[in-house]
Amino acid sequence: MIRAPWTLCGPCVCHPTVIDPLAPLLKQYADVRAHSVALAARLSDEDQCVQSMPDASPTKWHLAHTTWFFETLVLLPHVADYQPFDRHYAYLFNSYYEALGPRHPRLQRGLLSRPSIQEVHAYRNYVDRAILALALDGIDQDAIDLEALLGPLELGLNHEQQHQELLLTDILHLFSCNPLLPAYNPSAQRSAQEQTPMQWLSLPGGIISIGRSAPEQAAPELPGFAFDNETPRHQRLLPPYQLASRLVTCGEYKHFIEEGGYQDPQWWLSDGWAVVQAQQWTAPAYWLAPGDPRRPDAAWQVFGLDGVQPLQAHAPVANISFFEAAAYAEWAGSRLPTEFEWEAAFGTPGLSQMMGPVWQWTRSGYEPYPGFSPRAGAAREYNGKFMVGQQVLRGASLATPHKHSRSTYRNFFPPTARWQFAGLRLARDL
Amino acid sequence: MIRAPWTLCGPCVCHPTVIDPLAPLLKQYADVRAHSVALAARLSDEDQCVQSMPDASPTKWHLAHTTWFFETLVLLPHVADYQPFDRHYAYLFNSYYEALGPRHPRLQRGLLSRPSIQEVHAYRNYVDRAILALALDGIDQDAIDLEALLGPLELGLNHEQQHQELLLTDILHLFSCNPLLPAYNPSAQRSAQEQTPMQWLSLPGGIISIGRSAPEQAAPELPGFAFDNETPRHQRLLPPYQLASRLVTCGEYKHFIEEGGYQDPQWWLSDGWAVVQAQQWTAPAYWLAPGDPRRPDAAWQVFGLDGVQPLQAHAPVANISFFEAAAYAEWAGSRLPTEFEWEAAFGTPGLSQMMGPVWQWTRSGYEPYPGFSPRAGAAREYNGKFMVGQQVLRGASLATPHKHSRSTYRNFFPPTARWQFAGLRLARDL
Amino acid sequence: MIRAPWTLCGPCVCHPTVIDPLAPLLKQYADVRAHSVALAARLSDEDQCVQSMPDASPTKWHLAHTTWFFETLVLLPHVADYQPFDRHYAYLFNSYYEALGPRHPRLQRGLLSRPSIQEVHAYRNYVDRAILALALDGIDQDAIDLEALLGPLELGLNHEQQHQELLLTDILHLFSCNPLLPAYNPSAQRSAQEQTPMQWLSLPGGIISIGRSAPEQAAPELPGFAFDNETPRHQRLLPPYQLASRLVTCGEYKHFIEEGGYQDPQWWLSDGWAVVQAQQWTAPAYWLAPGDPRRPDAAWQVFGLDGVQPLQAHAPVANISFFEAAAYAEWAGSRLPTEFEWEAAFGTPGLSQMMGPVWQWTRSGYEPYPGFSPRAGAAREYNGKFMVGQQVLRGASLATPHKHSRSTYRNFFPPTARWQFAGLRLARDL
Amino acid sequence: MIRAPWTLCGPCVCHPTVIDPLAPLLKQYADVRAHSVALAARLSDEDQCVQSMPDASPTKWHLAHTTWFFETLVLLPHVADYQPFDRHYAYLFNSYYEALGPRHPRLQRGLLSRPSIQEVHAYRNYVDRAILALALDGIDQDAIDLEALLGPLELGLNHEQQHQELLLTDILHLFSCNPLLPAYNPSAQRSAQEQTPMQWLSLPGGIISIGRSAPEQAAPELPGFAFDNETPRHQRLLPPYQLASRLVTCGEYKHFIEEGGYQDPQWWLSDGWAVVQAQQWTAPAYWLAPGDPRRPDAAWQVFGLDGVQPLQAHAPVANISFFEAAAYAEWAGSRLPTEFEWEAAFGTPGLSQMMGPVWQWTRSGYEPYPGFSPRAGAAREYNGKFMVGQQVLRGASLATPHKHSRSTYRNFFPPTARWQFAGLRLARDL
Repeated sequence: MIRAPWTLCGPCVCHPTVIDPLAPLLKQYADVRAHSVALAARLSDEDQCVQSMPDASPTKWHLAHTTWFFETLVLLPHVADYQPFDRHYAYLFNSYYEALGPRHPRLQRGLLSRPSIQEVHAYRNYVDRAILALALDGIDQDAIDLEALLGPLELGLNHEQQHQELLLTDILHLFSCNPLLPAYNPSAQRSAQEQTPMQWLSLPGGIISIGRSAPEQAAPELPGFAFDNETPRHQRLLPPYQLASRLVTCGEYKHFIEEGGYQDPQWWLSDGWAVVQAQQWTAPAYWLAPGDPRRPDAAWQVFGLDGVQPLQAHAPVANISFFEAAAYAEWAGSRLPTEFEWEAAFGTPGLSQMMGPVWQWTRSGYEPYPGFSPRAGAAREYNGKFMVGQQVLRGASLATPHKHSRSTYRNFFPPTARWQFAGLRLARDL
Repeated sequence: MIRAPWTLCGPCVCHPTVIDPLAPLLKQYADVRAHSVALAARLSDEDQCVQSMPDASPTKWHLAHTTWFFETLVLLPHVADYQPFDRHYAYLFNSYYEALGPRHPRLQRGLLSRPSIQEVHAYRNYVDRAILALALDGIDQDAIDLEALLGPLELGLNHEQQHQELLLTDILHLFSCNPLLPAYNPSAQRSAQEQTPMQWLSLPGGIISIGRSAPEQAAPELPGFAFDNETPRHQRLLPPYQLASRLVTCGEYKHFIEEGGYQDPQWWLSDGWAVVQAQQWTAPAYWLAPGDPRRPDAAWQVFGLDGVQPLQAHAPVANISFFEAAAYAEWAGSRLPTEFEWEAAFGTPGLSQMMGPVWQWTRSGYEPYPGFSPRAGAAREYNGKFMVGQQVLRGASLATPHKHSRSTYRNFFPPTARWQFAGLRLARDL
Repeated sequence: MIRAPWTLCGPCVCHPTVIDPLAPLLKQYADVRAHSVALAARLSDEDQCVQSMPDASPTKWHLAHTTWFFETLVLLPHVADYQPFDRHYAYLFNSYYEALGPRHPRLQRGLLSRPSIQEVHAYRNYVDRAILALALDGIDQDAIDLEALLGPLELGLNHEQQHQELLLTDILHLFSCNPLLPAYNPSAQRSAQEQTPMQWLSLPGGIISIGRSAPEQAAPELPGFAFDNETPRHQRLLPPYQLASRLVTCGEYKHFIEEGGYQDPQWWLSDGWAVVQAQQWTAPAYWLAPGDPRRPDAAWQVFGLDGVQPLQAHAPVANISFFEAAAYAEWAGSRLPTEFEWEAAFGTPGLSQMMGPVWQWTRSGYEPYPGFSPRAGAAREYNGKFMVGQQVLRGASLATPHKHSRSTYRNFFPPTARWQFAGLRLARDL
Repeated sequence: MIRAPWTLCGPCVCHPTVIDPLAPLLKQYADVRAHSVALAARLSDEDQCVQSMPDASPTKWHLAHTTWFFETLVLLPHVADYQPFDRHYAYLFNSYYEALGPRHPRLQRGLLSRPSIQEVHAYRNYVDRAILALALDGIDQDAIDLEALLGPLELGLNHEQQHQELLLTDILHLFSCNPLLPAYNPSAQRSAQEQTPMQWLSLPGGIISIGRSAPEQAAPELPGFAFDNETPRHQRLLPPYQLASRLVTCGEYKHFIEEGGYQDPQWWLSDGWAVVQAQQWTAPAYWLAPGDPRRPDAAWQVFGLDGVQPLQAHAPVANISFFEAAAYAEWAGSRLPTEFEWEAAFGTPGLSQMMGPVWQWTRSGYEPYPGFSPRAGAAREYNGKFMVGQQVLRGASLATPHKHSRSTYRNFFPPTARWQFAGLRLARDL
């Protein structure tokens, strides 16, 4: 087990004069960094090395990339004589930042059996110590511009939290490709919540405020963090509409399957139907049909982080693409909500499951808000350059880190993506 | 030359009692059908047979498919004992209507050297005569429900007009693949309009009505035709914004190229940059760089329906993808307008080039309007099932048929498409 | 109809002093060139323009390419002031001769709707007249080296004959892709020969002379022509073996299908089995299974140059790949002969169908004979550079031009190729 | 470190009555099995899990697959109540034996992070103990048919030796994909043998005996082992020829590169030239050109099992494809030898480097010898089904296990394969 360096001396105790904003941030830094390591601790070295598809990354890569992010956006700009841990890592662990130079091809992340897991942990410790030293130096000597430091630090933590969710969805995808169908955490319990009858809740629409104030205004109070894609706060005009009180369940989705939903083009968007046929989809990504040779059983089963379990009719359907969500909604005589309808309804009494256990596909393409302006510097490439060809998801999932969810959060994935914990909630016109 | 059958007897003269809505529609039918034939008349049989890429179709296929559309949506439902011209054609010339049965693979339309051009013209005549007979029967004998006939007829004409534009863009693509770079119409003249200085026009935004009333309410008055994707008319709330008074010119775009625009990822959306590199784009689709071996010249040239011509600095840039339009706007410190900003500004004094000569890429993904409901029957698949992964274009182009353009028209193509006459107009926040 | 230029004046009559070798060659030139045109005469302009797959070429391209071959290998080297018909044609109609400069991509031959069929015929006439003028000049004025002319002329004729066969197999492939399944020549009759019982003929093996003398020794006597890949004549040592007296029939092959031959990997080479599964092969390329929707029938049918016909049990199986031939032989407890066994047995009494109606796949990879040396000059690339990854076929087919077949002829195609008239003869060890 | 079970009790000491053939085989079994484990001992768990390309397999998979081979071909047929170690392994570790049931897709071997390395070692021990018990039971109780056991055991050992070579070439390929270019064994020394001047040795040809007697005749004397593809011994007739006294060196090959060899199509087979252009080959697979950003240096370097080292002009060129070998030979005015020329010359005084350090591409396609018959049973698929589309290599390489090389050995790979230690020796006609 890796011990984070700040646990050795306890910065907040040794430095009682720490200014307000930094102390909680260092505490959060310690927590977030330790949580990534803890998530990986269930995995063997081999598990952590493999890339199962182009969209997924190895666990080890997640651990290193999130560290590189701090090194590049915090340490290099703020520590005058900072020596990178390894000069190759900028190439190996840059994800997609063109402004930061060439990088290892995304499709070949799984070929990096070196550096080893141990080296990556050493890298994490090296950077963690440097971050801590930077913070303490700044506090003691007023040598650094704390304000300028907070933004990148906060972004780095939120960035690492996003990768924590990806780490879980990526490892689940890897395990789903293994005929042995290993469980990430066999002792995890799935919620066995009772299914409540679905209600239609009526929302009035009207002129609604959407999104968040610009990030520079939100810092340094931590609860105020938002990604640039959630900004600026602006107004939308919505007609009245209805939202379902809860998510669509596995039992309901199984009905769609049994009624021939995957065989009838009338429910599907054109591109979706093409994918259904090309990929021969017949059920959500991790469902095992009765008789599946990997785990023969007379009934449907679902593979998840806890391994293969019987399908729970009450559980929300997960691991479906936008195309499947939209087809189900069409079949059900409804539609998906827009992301604005979702946000406008947030907090309405009677609306349940708004923050999990699965993300909720919306009918909204991922576009900039009116007046959108990306962050400055390298972080400029964080969100804005992906704003085409993807769909917005709202809410959160069982894999979303604690305190990382909020009503204005805009998750986004291509309409074909199935390896996320994504389901749907129905909507309809009033 | 093919003579349309109604020119033989002149229906309006022989049947002076023709009811109001049918007479102009038959006149329009004659005009539209003849125009397709006229467009093809400049081409050899070989030109009309070839498919140059998956997204394009042979001229002959356009001529047959538009005819099949009338046969299937008008004749078969309304003529009790109608005998199709050839039982194979339903398979060969269905484009994408899943509800109408299996069809010839899109990628293999260019393999259909048979039926011949002559057979396709015979097919057109056969269907034209049947349409005419149906209309006259209806008039004489009150035997048909004219109201029910008008909608599909009108749709079929607008459908054929869309294919007239595609016929031209598809043949231009074919010719662009030929090292001889033949001209579709060598004697066509390009507009040599003077370039006016670009002005920023300020628009107030506010609550704006967008789109059209539902189609069933628009018919039978012909000017009221709209595709279902333009409906329903609804309200949007827009912040104030500015629009450029004219389109971006070739001269301006050349400046972007010469400043290294195609080599710098900072201007590009992520997917766009990937395409630029994979396809090695360095200029709009039909531009010939100085020294191009096909037509050696010291200056830039542009290939078009009139063949290869010197680049006209004043002409609007055309044949660019959404990705290029967005990159140019970013480089120019601006952005693309949304489709709502475009429509809201329509008619503003000082705004020129709103209806050509090129379509205008917008920042808006192609999504259903609030309350959207597709047409009933087979036409249900006309628009709605494509509402994901594409961008909306507004305006019209030099290839858009006369009277086919309007301020609410929503054209749509994938963000990579370059073979349309598409350019851009700049916008910015106020 | 195109009249060949020499028919206008009759060279042999006007020039009675024509030296021996040239006269028959000019006669053959006229015949061969006219035959290509005659083969195309059954086709529409559209038929002649389309390329149905990367391995096939449009008819028009065959007509032009064979002409370019004469222009490039005969006229340009031997006529001092020769003006090419069109400066673009060297680029458009070079097939694969790297030494002769860049060329139009093979995959895009079907995009050349221009030049038109008429222009290609004009090109053919232009070159034919120049060839005739060259020959007559040479005769009259002793101005040219007749010996140096004969080799390339002869090669050009044999080259065009090869393309005559490809023209037919390529057009048949195109028609096979058309759901209408048009007939190239509806009035052609298939041979309805009685099936004779298959006999095993025993051959003694021993030291056998294989192949032909080097080409420079064969000219100028025309019957002596051979491609360089048939040379040099050399000796092989063969063990005793047995050959089947006739080709495998459609009836026998149907038995293989009905016994599950396409579902059982034990009969297949590994790469062959991969293709069977990837391409979902279940029968020879142009067989229609009972109930095929294109031509519903209760029995097997076979598509050929005469259209769709009932399967003739006595006819040799055709349009199979090497993989299918080898699998059938394995299933039949036999093997394919080597090309040397085939050539050694040629002329043995009792061996029938050695020269058609289908080529015979052999077990021999296409390799250079001991001492092989390619032709000099541009023709160096004619054969030698393909000597890897292909299998040798021996004999001839119904599409092979008259007088173009011989016992030493080495045809070659990749083991996956099915669009040739290729079948098999069984062999076994003694 | 894993201790092989037989080292615990020393079977030969405990059982002095062991019959002749079994004792040395058990000794060899212990040696071979231990050698595989030793080869893997230099690698981390992560190294052993990754698959770097479709043709390569993870180290762990090699360790398990070779074990499965013994389990399936020796234990299951000969031990009545044998319980497989894990019922899933037959699916996971079957390579390509269709007769032995379905198997894990080859392209997904790298996704098997489970079973772990430790489980695979447990599997090896389990099978090793069972093999030992089987042998001892047989010796003690005459309970088994020793003769029937020897063939599969011997095949299994030779099979594992083949995988030992692949294990090394596969891990080298993996490391070559890693920008860090790690060394498998940094302390390994490359032979620094002096370059001797190349001599042409003349061979008389004539009737030569090639290959080996059938395997059933070779057993049980171990030195007599041969794969079925080396049988039967037969006669070939060869013309006189010349062979180079040594292999082509890196210095000579560098000359080919510097003379523009990779830019000139005249030296290349057609398929080879296509690969050169598509893959942008400019040097052997593991050469680093001067200035390579991974290891900047002014001179050529070569990556190997000992990491990156300066190019040694005297060392034989390695890691080239058949296409490169043939192109070099053409450029050098020579050709590659046939596999028969190579075997016939074996043992000729003055011929050096016949058994390494690199395999030698020959001009011979991989075909069955006259009278070839594959082994019976599951081993039938071992060699024969690959006999098309590949080229024969002769000799051995630095990675070939001790005692695994012989003059009749036929190695084979596709002509594009570069990740083997393969080079060339020149030949020419006399």
